[in-house]
Amino acid sequence: MKIATIGTNWITEAFIEAGKEVEGFELQAVFSRDQEKAEAFASKNGAAKAYNSLEAMFADPEVEAVYIASPNRYHAEQALAAMDKGKHVICEKPLCSNEKEADALIKKAEQMQVVLMEGIKNMYTPAFKEITSHLEKAGPIRRVYLQYCQYSSRYDAYKEGTVLNAFKPELSNGSSMDLGVYLFHPAIAWFGRPSRIMAMGYKLETGVDGQACVLMQYEGFEVIISYSKIMGSSLASEIQGEDGVLRIDNVNTPEEVAFLPRGGKEEKLSMPSGRPAMSYEIEEFIHLIKSGGERHVTLQQSRDVLSVIDEVRQQLGVVYEAD
Amino acid sequence: MKIATIGTNWITEAFIEAGKEVEGFELQAVFSRDQEKAEAFASKNGAAKAYNSLEAMFADPEVEAVYIASPNRYHAEQALAAMDKGKHVICEKPLCSNEKEADALIKKAEQMQVVLMEGIKNMYTPAFKEITSHLEKAGPIRRVYLQYCQYSSRYDAYKEGTVLNAFKPELSNGSSMDLGVYLFHPAIAWFGRPSRIMAMGYKLETGVDGQACVLMQYEGFEVIISYSKIMGSSLASEIQGEDGVLRIDNVNTPEEVAFLPRGGKEEKLSMPSGRPAMSYEIEEFIHLIKSGGERHVTLQQSRDVLSVIDEVRQQLGVVYEAD
Repeated sequence: MKIATIGTNWITEAFIEAGKEVEGFELQAVFSRDQEKAEAFASKNGAAKAYNSLEAMFADPEVEAVYIASPNRYHAEQALAAMDKGKHVICEKPLCSNEKEADALIKKAEQMQVVLMEGIKNMYTPAFKEITSHLEKAGPIRRVYLQYCQYSSRYDAYKEGTVLNAFKPELSNGSSMDLGVYLFHPAIAWFGRPSRIMAMGYKLETGVDGQACVLMQYEGFEVIISYSKIMGSSLASEIQGEDGVLRIDNVNTPEEVAFLPRGGKEEKLSMPSGRPAMSYEIEEFIHLIKSGGERHVTLQQSRDVLSVIDEVRQQLGVVYEAD
Repeated sequence: MKIATIGTNWITEAFIEAGKEVEGFELQAVFSRDQEKAEAFASKNGAAKAYNSLEAMFADPEVEAVYIASPNRYHAEQALAAMDKGKHVICEKPLCSNEKEADALIKKAEQMQVVLMEGIKNMYTPAFKEITSHLEKAGPIRRVYLQYCQYSSRYDAYKEGTVLNAFKPELSNGSSMDLGVYLFHPAIAWFGRPSRIMAMGYKLETGVDGQACVLMQYEGFEVIISYSKIMGSSLASEIQGEDGVLRIDNVNTPEEVAFLPRGGKEEKLSMPSGRPAMSYEIEEFIHLIKSGGERHVTLQQSRDVLSVIDEVRQQLGVVYEAD
């Protein structure tokens, strides 16, 4: 699969590194607005071509698929343009800025019969599949606590007066989009859309959410979603049921999963696989394209996740230019 | 201090056992509605007298103070009756059924110049004081996660069709009163009353809350309160700040407290003291009486906690006969 990339920061390099572990992955082209930067990036990462024009790259018949890792704000317009030229698209999480954009993207993917997929790495890991297959072990689920709190180095810059991309609302950024998305995805994958959402958070002066916590109501239980870019935590995440607890080390990159039966002995369910987490999403993306371009199940989830984040942002008063 | 007890279940025995560790504690009398039960309890626990009449016990001039461990519903009327006879009162948590009753109790304690104190054991432990004195270590606080989830053996009975006291709304019971109270107290002690409260929970068919989670808004941070009587959890509680995390093993009986600086090495702050947790509240109660009956600082907190629980119950639709 001949893939072109948009974006030249660490996440694109992580994607390319992970791709090297996947059969059929071939880095065909890279894009940067700056031709010199594009060429340096191509040469460093072994790409055949370097583009500084998206139009030209999307017109390249040798490019079969595009990986988008530009700022969130540009995901939708770049994915639409790529799909318009018949390219398959894997887009770094979140899929786009909001539910409205997600609807347009899904419509375009259907119309062009291409694969569109959100690169939400945790959802494709073996550990995530392991948790999902063992959900019933917990018995009737009563509460789920999902957390991803990580003090961002960019917050140091912010406090010193430099607002980097991560904290810019005009780029559709903030903690819900950056970290929350890793938590909303599993919740919606396991339990569907909640009947009620309550959000509380801390908005930075730029207008993005530095952190938030969200309660989601389900029949018979609640999901607590806790994320932050301005502090860390040592806590695990848990699926808490009447018969026991499933404990997940990190929801964003799940590796160690254990079941703790009520009153019983801990049972390990999953351990680190040794492969980069992103390699599984790439494998799935290539598999989907090769198997005939069936639209992936998580695409509807991507839309539902953005719909929940839309609601969370509304409650927090976080507005994007893209809204 | 010659103390009489109301209630003959395990918590009263735990109180008496803890009292034996405290200088000046003397078990003077015990009460049960059933005289035979009262006498057996007195003889088992070494009390001089056994009463089956509260009126008679409160009239006993040798009784200086009363410990109330009856069902929550009766705390207020029994405390009022005891204070009316000039007795000091320590009342098992929660102080009473709601804020309205708390107001009446506080008024009566002032009027009669007696000590009234809620027996909320965690607030008097060395570990709690240790946490409080180290709060600033965490830097600007950004989130607090306090949890107490414990599958109740009474829930087994409930599922088999037997509703025990713990799940009766007519006794002002349920998870907020039974477990939540241990979490709301520290939050209010540290940060005062929240500006906003959002609650979600699971109501049993009897009308009490089997569990709830509550978000509390403060300036610049949020407090998550998570409790349940119908499932357990292996998670610790945390005070999460920009500079690090204070981790508490169990908020209801804090013993092991540690500070985890951001990017640094864990520092142990507190370890088990070896004394029963309840002995500290008894020590404080006797100290207050001996030092002249100054009303305790946590009494206003007890009222604030009930005010928060009133709000939580209102959002969950949990109504007591006492309301």
